[in-house]
Amino acid sequence: MRRCRTALIQLAFPDTGDALRQRIEARLREAAAGRADLAVLPELHQGRYFCQTEDPAAFDAAEPLPGPTTRWLGELAAELQLVIVASLFERRAAGLYHNTAVVIDRDGTLAGRYRKMHIPDDPGYYEKYYFTPGDTGFRPIRCSLGSLGVLVCWDQWFPEAARLMALAGAELLVYPTAIGRDPRDAAEEQARQREAWQLVQRGHAVANALPLVAVNRTGHEPDPEGRTPGIDFWGSSFATGPQGELLIELPQDDEDLALVDIDLDRSERVRRIWPFFRDRRIDAYEGLLARWREED
Amino acid sequence: MRRCRTALIQLAFPDTGDALRQRIEARLREAAAGRADLAVLPELHQGRYFCQTEDPAAFDAAEPLPGPTTRWLGELAAELQLVIVASLFERRAAGLYHNTAVVIDRDGTLAGRYRKMHIPDDPGYYEKYYFTPGDTGFRPIRCSLGSLGVLVCWDQWFPEAARLMALAGAELLVYPTAIGRDPRDAAEEQARQREAWQLVQRGHAVANALPLVAVNRTGHEPDPEGRTPGIDFWGSSFATGPQGELLIELPQDDEDLALVDIDLDRSERVRRIWPFFRDRRIDAYEGLLARWREED
Repeated sequence: MRRCRTALIQLAFPDTGDALRQRIEARLREAAAGRADLAVLPELHQGRYFCQTEDPAAFDAAEPLPGPTTRWLGELAAELQLVIVASLFERRAAGLYHNTAVVIDRDGTLAGRYRKMHIPDDPGYYEKYYFTPGDTGFRPIRCSLGSLGVLVCWDQWFPEAARLMALAGAELLVYPTAIGRDPRDAAEEQARQREAWQLVQRGHAVANALPLVAVNRTGHEPDPEGRTPGIDFWGSSFATGPQGELLIELPQDDEDLALVDIDLDRSERVRRIWPFFRDRRIDAYEGLLARWREED
Repeated sequence: MRRCRTALIQLAFPDTGDALRQRIEARLREAAAGRADLAVLPELHQGRYFCQTEDPAAFDAAEPLPGPTTRWLGELAAELQLVIVASLFERRAAGLYHNTAVVIDRDGTLAGRYRKMHIPDDPGYYEKYYFTPGDTGFRPIRCSLGSLGVLVCWDQWFPEAARLMALAGAELLVYPTAIGRDPRDAAEEQARQREAWQLVQRGHAVANALPLVAVNRTGHEPDPEGRTPGIDFWGSSFATGPQGELLIELPQDDEDLALVDIDLDRSERVRRIWPFFRDRRIDAYEGLLARWREED
């Protein structure tokens, strides 16, 4: 069995700067002490989720890749012998920014980057203002652990993204995420949304017979402009096996670090009993490239 | 609200012929008495699930469409003012057979047919012997209730099928199904499979913001050749709303008829809060048409 011990590092963001970096570093050391092979951080973990408003000054936080954060995490990865999936605000050029996930290999090198392909935009998540949709396409990132199908948050709602990663040989789907409750929604709607978020990703695990890890932010973050009650990030980070079975689920409202052993060899056994990849009707899928199928 | 009251008719198959037809008719009358708009029957409900073995004599049960079964159900549909989703063994020509679902409208006419596009083949489900893969493509069937995205069983594992139906305007996904437990599997594996089956379909509901109905067979059916312990069809027919939320779930091991009110207007409200169709990266999905993505 090729075991990948994975640390899900679910964080709250009451602070920024050095205090936050020290907390992240402590969590990565905790993961290494637990003999993790892989550590996954939430989406945009270098500070507050700044997309609650459209603020030109927020671009100051973007950084080049490689840059200060990848160097810092690279040193930690090499010291701790840990592969790290990080999620950063990338400044690619003046006026050109991305929401980018990176895999830092256990030797500290940058194994690859994935620029978030699906960009959301809805009240409180004004990401289309900040992030140019990615141009990396859907390719897993090869590292010493295997092929990681790294996607980011909004991607999680798109079966196409998971499928394309699987078809390109991903062995594990990994989603850094920032999603939460609107405190004004009714409790039942909040519950349905959180469950739907988990269901659709567990569905990707089943459809592709792949294990999957999603790591979310937790805790309340206020709206800096005070127009809304802010976001209660709902935590609930989780890992599933290749039949969508929950391996672990973290709490909704607290920081946590969980270690879970993922068997990267089990996908092939599951695909032998459920040979979906044998039977895809690629002769009849062209409509997937359409915006809408008024006519064929 | 456009309400579609749907009858999920979960059947066991201890008998065949007239006895079975009388039971189906009684259930359709029960659905109509409960003011159902739509009744959904399990996959291949005209008799035993014959694909447990490869038997040339089994083709005798195939029938043309329209044919005796659609005429019989058409008369019932017109009398009961009920739309019926049926699943039949279609004889299209000598040596050319399909696993075909039909929608019979409330005036008794054949609103349309869907030939199962993804055909399974694994021990106990030798469907590739019997059924030519469908050539209808993935198009919803329009009837007096709206656009029904009718798919069949193995299709349920393929996000592409659900997506193509959604893109073509389906308002409700409908899956007649025949799936069960291998009695030799460990209880945990049986439970994982059943849960995966439900998860992946609830995932389609979420990804497409569509309600979904799956109606399965139940009960034990022996292997006619006695080589295996047969199949325990696991029932568990269910309906979900457009956030994947369970509206109803039937028992695993008993026949049952359940009525559930499905709100066909809720999808648009859900798609306004989660506008996935706005953001699909159709410029980057070409790999979905590949068998495997060794290289772009």
